[in-house]
Amino acid sequence: MEQDSRLGGGSSVEGGSPPAASGARRPGGRTAKVRRAVLDATQEALAASGFHTLNMDRIAASAGVGKTTVYRRWGSPVGLVADLLDDMAEQSLPAADTGGLAGDLRANAALVLGTLTDPRMGPVFRAVIAAAACDEECARALAGFYRTRLAEWAPVGERAVARGELPAGTDPLELLRAVSAPLYYRFAVTHEQPTPADAERAVAAALAAAAAGAFAPGGADAS
Amino acid sequence: MEQDSRLGGGSSVEGGSPPAASGARRPGGRTAKVRRAVLDATQEALAASGFHTLNMDRIAASAGVGKTTVYRRWGSPVGLVADLLDDMAEQSLPAADTGGLAGDLRANAALVLGTLTDPRMGPVFRAVIAAAACDEECARALAGFYRTRLAEWAPVGERAVARGELPAGTDPLELLRAVSAPLYYRFAVTHEQPTPADAERAVAAALAAAAAGAFAPGGADAS
Repeated sequence: MEQDSRLGGGSSVEGGSPPAASGARRPGGRTAKVRRAVLDATQEALAASGFHTLNMDRIAASAGVGKTTVYRRWGSPVGLVADLLDDMAEQSLPAADTGGLAGDLRANAALVLGTLTDPRMGPVFRAVIAAAACDEECARALAGFYRTRLAEWAPVGERAVARGELPAGTDPLELLRAVSAPLYYRFAVTHEQPTPADAERAVAAALAAAAAGAFAPGGADAS
Repeated sequence: MEQDSRLGGGSSVEGGSPPAASGARRPGGRTAKVRRAVLDATQEALAASGFHTLNMDRIAASAGVGKTTVYRRWGSPVGLVADLLDDMAEQSLPAADTGGLAGDLRANAALVLGTLTDPRMGPVFRAVIAAAACDEECARALAGFYRTRLAEWAPVGERAVARGELPAGTDPLELLRAVSAPLYYRFAVTHEQPTPADAERAVAAALAAAAAGAFAPGGADAS
C-alpha cells in the first residue's frame, strides 16, 4: 500500500484496533469475553470470505464458544453482523484535534483511506456494505455505525466555525460526508482503488466547498 | 418520491429506459431479441429480490428462452449481471448540454438521484453494488459501467474549461465523481435516502471545489 506522509500513514482504521489489542483493552467478564471472541471470529470470517458464507456453526467453533450460545445470543448471521457494527462503532477512534480544520480533515481522510485499503478492514467493510445491500437489519446497523462516526467527528467542523475558519451555520456532518464520500464511492461503487492523492483531493474539495458556503443554510450559489 | 423542479424531475435513469421502450428501440435479429428478453428478466429479478437469489432456470423461464441457451451464453448469474451492466452502459443516456456548467452538473445530479430513487432502478443498483462487493467479475463490469458513464459526461467539464468557467487543466472525471459521490455514498454506504437537497448540495460543492482548482493539477491549497 502506497503511503503518503501528508496523510499520516495508514496504520489507524475506523472501527477500532485489531482483535488482540481490543481484547486486551476491554477485559470484562465472561459474557464480554464470549462476545469479544465471537465478534473477532465474525470479523475474521467476513474479511476472509464475505457475508454470504458466514456460518453460525463455524463462528462458534473458531470462537471456541458453544453453538447454542451463539444461536441464542445472535440468532443469525445478520445478528452477528449487526452486533459487530455496534461494537465497531463503540470502539471507533476519537476525532482528531490538530488545531486547524485542514489538519483535522486530513486526519479523517487518512483514517478512511487507511481503513478501506487495510488488508483486513478493507474486506470487512466490503462485506458489511454487501450485507447492508441485501438485508434491512444490516443496513440499519451500518447506518448506525456511520451516525456514530459522524457525530464523533462533528466537533471538527464546530471548532472550525468557532475559530472563524468556516461560514457560520456550516453543517459539520455534511463537511465530513464530503471528505468520506469520494473515497467510499471509489471503494464501493466504481471499484477504483482509493489512493492518498484521492484523499488529498477530497480534503481540498471539501475545504473549498465549505469555504464557499456549500454546507451552510441556503448553500453556495450554484446558478 | 419528493420531486424538485430545479433538478428536472426524476423520470430519466442511468442505464437506459425501461425494457419495453428499449426493446422497441433496438429490435435486431433473433440473437438480439433473446439477449433483450434475458437481460430484461435479469434486471426484473435483481429489482425484485437481489443478486443472491438470481437463478438461471427462473431467468430462462421468465424470458421465455431455453435453459440451454441461457447456460451456454451467460454461464452463471455473474455472467448475467456482467452482461446486463455492459448493456446498461451501451444504453446510457448522452450527456446534457445546457450551455452552462451549473446546468449540466445539475442534469447529471438529477440523473443520478432519479436512478437511485427510482422504484425499479434503485433496487437494481443496490443489487449490482452488492454483487460487485462479492464477485470480482461483477466488480469489473460495474467499474466498466461507470467508466463509460464518466467518459460520456466528460465533455461537460471540457466545455466548461473551454468557456473559461473552470481553471485550465481541471480533470472532468474528478468533477463528475464529485457530483455523484455524495449521492452514492448515502445510497450504498450510510443508507441515508438521497434527496433533491443532497443533489443540489453536491452540485454546489463540486462547482465551488472546481472553481478553487481542487480538480486541477496541483490541486487547491489545502494547508
